Formats: sequence, C-alpha cells, structure tokens
Amino acid sequence: MSSSTTAIRRLKLLNRTLGIGSMKHRVTVIGSGNWGSAIAKIVAENAKGNPDVFHEEVKMFVSKHSGSRNLTSIINTIHENPKYLPGIALPPNLFATPSLPDAVSEASILIFNVPHQFVSNICRQINGSCLPYARAISCIKGVDVSPDGVSLFSDTIGRKLGIYCGALSGANIASEVAKEKFSETTIAYAPPEGPTEDFPKGLTPVPEELPTVDHALLKTLFHTSYFHVRVVSDVAGVSLGGALKNIVALAAGFVDGLEWGDNAKAAVMRVGLLEMRKFGKMFFGKSCKSATFTEESCGVADLITSCNGGRNHKCAMLSVRTGKSIETVEGEELNGQKLQGTITAREVNVYLKNKGLEHEFPLFTAVYRILNGETNVESLPQLIETD
Amino acid sequence: MSSSTTAIRRLKLLNRTLGIGSMKHRVTVIGSGNWGSAIAKIVAENAKGNPDVFHEEVKMFVSKHSGSRNLTSIINTIHENPKYLPGIALPPNLFATPSLPDAVSEASILIFNVPHQFVSNICRQINGSCLPYARAISCIKGVDVSPDGVSLFSDTIGRKLGIYCGALSGANIASEVAKEKFSETTIAYAPPEGPTEDFPKGLTPVPEELPTVDHALLKTLFHTSYFHVRVVSDVAGVSLGGALKNIVALAAGFVDGLEWGDNAKAAVMRVGLLEMRKFGKMFFGKSCKSATFTEESCGVADLITSCNGGRNHKCAMLSVRTGKSIETVEGEELNGQKLQGTITAREVNVYLKNKGLEHEFPLFTAVYRILNGETNVESLPQLIETD
Repeated sequence: MSSSTTAIRRLKLLNRTLGIGSMKHRVTVIGSGNWGSAIAKIVAENAKGNPDVFHEEVKMFVSKHSGSRNLTSIINTIHENPKYLPGIALPPNLFATPSLPDAVSEASILIFNVPHQFVSNICRQINGSCLPYARAISCIKGVDVSPDGVSLFSDTIGRKLGIYCGALSGANIASEVAKEKFSETTIAYAPPEGPTEDFPKGLTPVPEELPTVDHALLKTLFHTSYFHVRVVSDVAGVSLGGALKNIVALAAGFVDGLEWGDNAKAAVMRVGLLEMRKFGKMFFGKSCKSATFTEESCGVADLITSCNGGRNHKCAMLSVRTGKSIETVEGEELNGQKLQGTITAREVNVYLKNKGLEHEFPLFTAVYRILNGETNVESLPQLIETD
Repeated sequence: MSSSTTAIRRLKLLNRTLGIGSMKHRVTVIGSGNWGSAIAKIVAENAKGNPDVFHEEVKMFVSKHSGSRNLTSIINTIHENPKYLPGIALPPNLFATPSLPDAVSEASILIFNVPHQFVSNICRQINGSCLPYARAISCIKGVDVSPDGVSLFSDTIGRKLGIYCGALSGANIASEVAKEKFSETTIAYAPPEGPTEDFPKGLTPVPEELPTVDHALLKTLFHTSYFHVRVVSDVAGVSLGGALKNIVALAAGFVDGLEWGDNAKAAVMRVGLLEMRKFGKMFFGKSCKSATFTEESCGVADLITSCNGGRNHKCAMLSVRTGKSIETVEGEELNGQKLQGTITAREVNVYLKNKGLEHEFPLFTAVYRILNGETNVESLPQLIETD
C-alpha cells in the first residue's frame, strides 16, 4: 500500500474517532485547454474516489475567450471537451463554469492551467474572491525570464492572490495523459512556515477541520495508475526544467540535423542537463536541488522526451538539414505557433549577458549564438569543451 | 586552457628546471577489435602530441585468435585494421605486436580492451612480464555478475596482475569514435593510497622520475576535440553503468513495442536510472557515487543512447510487436550474437533473489519476469509503482 493511501486511511479513522471530518476540500481547475481538461479529468476522478477528503464536485473554469460561446454547457451536457480534448470522456462530477468567482469562491485547492500570457489577468479577476486559506498548484509550463530576473508562475500566482502556490511539471503530453497512456510527473509543494517577503504576516492557515494539504494529500489528488506522481519541495527546480529543456532540445536537434549519431546527441543532452541544474542553483540558491533535475520526471525525463520528439528538436533539425533559418522552418512547420525554445534561449542569454555569466553556460550560449548566426553548429563540441 | 594542459606545461617547466624528465610513460593497448583499435588511435595521437610525457611509440597487442594470421603485419604496413576497423587511418606511431610479453614488458600504462571472456586468460599470460608499477585502464564494458556477487573487470585485472586498474566507459560506439564523430566518455581512476585487501603491501609506487599518473595525465592521454573525457574516482559506478543500462534498454524497448509514446519511455528510463544507482550504492557502498549515474557519460548518457538505438532496445521492441519470444528475435536479428541485456537481467535477478532483494528493484525484476513469461509488458506501470 502506498504511503499516501495509508495517510488517508489514518485520517479517515481519526475523523471517525473524533467525530469530525465534515469539512472536505473543494477542488477547482482554472483553465480548460487540453492540458487543463486532462488534469481536470484526473483530479475529478480522484476527488470522487476519495470522498472522505474531497468534495465530489470539481469545478473547471472555462474562459469566455476559449473560442466557443457555449463550451461550458456543451462540457456539462456531453461530459467531453470537444474543442480541446475531443473523444475523451470527462467524469460527470466535473462541472464547467464560465464564472471565475463561482469557480474559486469555495475552493480550498486551486489548480492553475492557463496559457502563461493570461496568468496576470486571471489573477486580477480572481483577487478578493478566493478563500484566504486556499492552496494552489500551477501546471503552467516554464518560467518568465526578463533581463532582470527569472520569475516562477507559481510565485506570481501566489503573490497576486496572497495564497501559496506550488508547481506541477513532467514528461507529459496532454493528449497522451488524457488517453491514460503511462507517464510520470513531479509536483513541488513547500509552503513557508513563517513570514516571508511575499507573505510578511505568514500564510493564512488551512482550517484545522480540513485535511492537511501536504505531499500525501497532493499525491492522492493527482496520482493514478497511469499517471505516477512524485512530490518534492523544490518549486524552482520543477518550474525551470520545463523552460530550460527547450534550449537543450534545440541543441539536440542541431546535432541530429548533422547526423552525428546518438552518442553526440546524448553528450549534448548530458551537458545541457547539468547547465539546467547550474542555472537553478546559481539563481535560486540552495532551495533548488540537484535531484530535481537529474532524478525527477520534470528534469531528466522531460528533457529526454523533448529531445526525442518535441517541436523544438524537430525545427532545429530541419533548419540544419535544409540550411533554412529556424524562423523559416518555424513558419513552415508550426502553423503560426511560436517555438518556445528560441524565445527562452534568447531571454536566458539576455539575462546571462546582463550578469556577465554567458561563459558559465557554454551550451546555452552556443545555442543562442547558433540561432543568431554568430557561430555554426559544427563548432558545438569545441564550444562546450571544458577543463 | 584546460587544467590538464596547464598541468603538463608546469611539468615540462619543472623538468627543464630540474634537468630531469628523461623518463616518459610507455603506453600499450591490449586488444585490437574495433573498440581497441579506436582507442589505440586516440592514445597514439595523444602520445605523439605530448612528447614530454609519453613515448611516441604506442604498442597494440593483436591476438593470434583475432582470426587473421598476418593482421599484425598488415596493420603495421598499411596503418589500418582492415578486419575490425576498415577505412580508418591509424597513426604511424601505433605498432601492432602479436607478442604479449613484447607488448607489456616496458609499458607503464596498460589499456585493456579485449572481449570480457578473454580477460582471465590474457592476465594469466601477462603475469610476471608487466612492470610492477604499471597502471592500467579497463575499457571492457560491463561487470561480471555471479549468484554470489558482482565483480568488476578492472578489479579482476588489477588482482591478477598485482597492479592498479581503473575503468573507462561512456556513450561510445567504436565506429563513430573512430570516424571522429563527437562523443563523451568517463574514466574512473582512484588507486588506493595504503594497503588494501587486494594489495596487502600497498601498490608498487610509480618511479618519481615518471610523470604522476593522475586524472590530469589520463585526460591528456584520452581526451580529444571530438572525444571529451571526464575523469572521476568511482570505478564501480563507471563499470556498472555499462552493464545495467542494458536491462533498462529492454524495458524501453518493450514500451516502444506497445507504442506507449515518448513520455512512457522516459518514465521507464528515469526509474531504471535510479535503480542502477541504487544497485551501485547497495552493493558497492559509499565509493559508488550518485553523480556517476545521473551526471556522467557512463551513466545517463550511455543509458539514453542504448534506449534510443541499441540492439537490446530493438530486439525487445520487435519481440512485443511481433509476439515472438526475445530469443527468437535475437536469433533472427543478431546473426548469432547474443543480447547482453537478457544475460545481465537474468544474472542480476539470480543475485537479487539470492539476497532476497528483488522487491527493491521493481523495474529490473519486472524485466526479468517479462523475459521469463511470468508477467506481461502491459503490467509495467503497476509493477514499478511505488509509494
């Protein structure tokens, strides 16, 4: 039996003994894209399966901007999201709502799963209507890199709403998770115990009548037989993996474009993985753990997936093969969408340059310079050669 | 400038100042297969390029059993090994010899690169003729697993010859290294400083007139612009990676056979990597380092390569796709050669079973049971699910 199952059983027993337990967590998913819907499917199934801890009803906020006026009522009628997750049955205890206040006002656990450009606006709309003791998990991939610093979407959400927000990231493709194909993910959750810069008075405590929101409870909410969850405490590491891997995937694509073979590609991936970790440790300090990058799904596994089949890898490979610029390939292949890797590579380079630290990250810097036409792919081994 | 280059320059200066330096290392490669010849090419080039530290002449032992009676003279005439590494120019300062005493009698650095089944016999033939202060590096992939224990080829060589032997392993394919395609490798070297069980009187010290055999010197001997070397101290970890990865590659092949997608494959690889490390730490103690598995070429990079394109992965995938046993696929695909992964999976299982530790290694155990027909591939996620 897993430790999370054990914890829940113990809780049930305790509640029965003490005659409490009437308070349960209400869970809401904010976002109804393909990843939002896939995650909503899982947490709704787990909420129903653990009635002592969670209210059966799970809400899912569907934005007016989701492109379909009556998507909410369609989802609630046919229990499917035909726009973003067609062909996948959603649990009947998942209720779509077009109203943010309705979605969040009673929820003690909020799961954010919206495109990153909407985060600020959604938080502005929520502010004031969510429970002060709510806890959140951000499933938004990546980080926000500006010339001055790197900020985590989970921190942005937490600060704007005055609640704590952790993060979920892993080697996951929404459509595969929705089809219940096996994968793993990593959740990071480590609410501060005392006052912090973001929470000068400390967090509003979760009422004692509610089950404690801890690693075991989060595992109960997210883990399934086909979606294995590991919960850690390194929010920065979990968030950085999903952004920085895209730079490495470009490098792997370049090497595949040159047909240098699997060993050269594995070498570039290894060097990239260590630069991802170094970036985390250098800019997020001791809270950022080595193991998050080298041992967890959000690190090494997500990197492997992205270097095998992701769009960054593909466009970089085609760019080398055809001799076209990566922007041209992007235009031809992605149907108007933008490559995340090239954006992140440039943002990270501006940041590193600002700090005078380009030389500490030879692979990240090489990828940027290759994208920028300042060097060629053939120089990669020489550029990443170290003492 | 690399630290190894700096070390060599300092040495040159010191020798010139002190008027010494007439003694240099003589390097011999034992073995002339494709990996032996590729490694011999590299060390001969580096010996020539560093004349203050190494004698220019590098010898390569060519066994009578290499299948070609006059291979030695052919190699020495055309500077190519047409049998095992056709089309690759070997440096003129590499001299093939059919005599083991001739190959080893003057060599202060011995590089072993023979098929593992010949190790004992070769050591028997060498014993007595090698220098007592010689140091060795084993490039023989893998480890020897018996029901009673796991032994390293480097330890076997060291014990039988009474000299210290380190190990080299990484994401390398001989033919690609020979063609100077980019890859990385890991060397482990950590001679004991005092008496040990294998060396009750301690090692015979290297004469002071010879350059110290340390990490910097080994990097000088093996590192090139296309073959990047990192030197560590964890001989067990470096050796285990090359063996245990094959079990994981079978699991990855099974998952690909089911077409479960890149994320499922990455998950299995991540779980496998951590079991490789756990195996090392459990049976080789503190000398076995986490980082060797999760950060070095011999660990994570070699694993990635083997799960992408190796024969273990391929046969496992075809076995699932066709419904044929892996032995049948092996017979059809490998032209008489044997899969290393199935042998290692069985050997490791016997060893773990002997120790009552099968349950501590759910992926290794699952692979064994799948091979043995005791469970099916579809159960993998459930079998590797942990707390």
